[in-house]
Amino acid sequence: MIILGIDPAIRTTGYGVIKADSPASFEILDCGMIQNSARLPHSECVRRLSGGIRELIATFKPDFASLEDPFVGRNAGTAIILGMARGAILAALAENGIPAFSYSPKTAKRSAVGTGSATKEQVAMLVAAELKIGIERIPLDATDALALAICHAQRALRPELAEMMGKPL
Amino acid sequence: MIILGIDPAIRTTGYGVIKADSPASFEILDCGMIQNSARLPHSECVRRLSGGIRELIATFKPDFASLEDPFVGRNAGTAIILGMARGAILAALAENGIPAFSYSPKTAKRSAVGTGSATKEQVAMLVAAELKIGIERIPLDATDALALAICHAQRALRPELAEMMGKPL
Repeated sequence: MIILGIDPAIRTTGYGVIKADSPASFEILDCGMIQNSARLPHSECVRRLSGGIRELIATFKPDFASLEDPFVGRNAGTAIILGMARGAILAALAENGIPAFSYSPKTAKRSAVGTGSATKEQVAMLVAAELKIGIERIPLDATDALALAICHAQRALRPELAEMMGKPL
Repeated sequence: MIILGIDPAIRTTGYGVIKADSPASFEILDCGMIQNSARLPHSECVRRLSGGIRELIATFKPDFASLEDPFVGRNAGTAIILGMARGAILAALAENGIPAFSYSPKTAKRSAVGTGSATKEQVAMLVAAELKIGIERIPLDATDALALAICHAQRALRPELAEMMGKPL
């Protein structure tokens, strides 16, 4: 089972692709960021986001996507921009028939590393240890996305966790 | 010059396509709505929105798109959902290299029918008269989109209005 974790934002979208064949066997296939310079207009940002997600889909053929719940702050203007990033990404997933689920950052971290309040550095360290790779291979902006992928993999692979499955998008 | 006006929302997105060869010669090529039933999940809504916009692009090959400024209310949760619709639509436009501009509903109505506070019915009546078609051909949810298209066409065709061009997205 291949899972694509995505932490969407208009400027820096983290992603992590894992292969999970059993709850005890996870492997990182790729992780990184889709970066949009602050000078790029929104139209170009969403084009790069949907194009980047499509490339990941073509390369890794994920069975599921696992996204972070949107941060609903007080600022509706910021929320519209975050929504634009999510909409472009979600359309690319849906066009390719990839079911997407949404988890809170806390739930994702707790699943991946045992505590919901871990820092990016702690998540990177523990994920690197669990997946038996060097920590230098995990960019910090991709840690949330990897935690999201691991979180969904556990629920998809362990029947006893099925009812904790995230919100389908 | 072909202009695609779009009034984006997750459940009912109005669109209007006009051909504008001179400030005195506008013609409606198409108008209508992309409707998403309340039962559809967001992933399916954004897929239908980006697919619908792509179909309009393939059919009419617009030179510009003209979108409504997002309504920034107080509710950040609603804003994220409106943003998702915009992001999916904007990505489809940008992938096809179509420059998109944004106007307030008031500006669009004032340009199209002379007053910023016209109702949908009044806009429909005046647009139908201006474009010399029967009012029954204009669904009310498409009137804002037609006003947006007319608004941008005026600015694109009249050099003296060029500095009133909308916000590039």
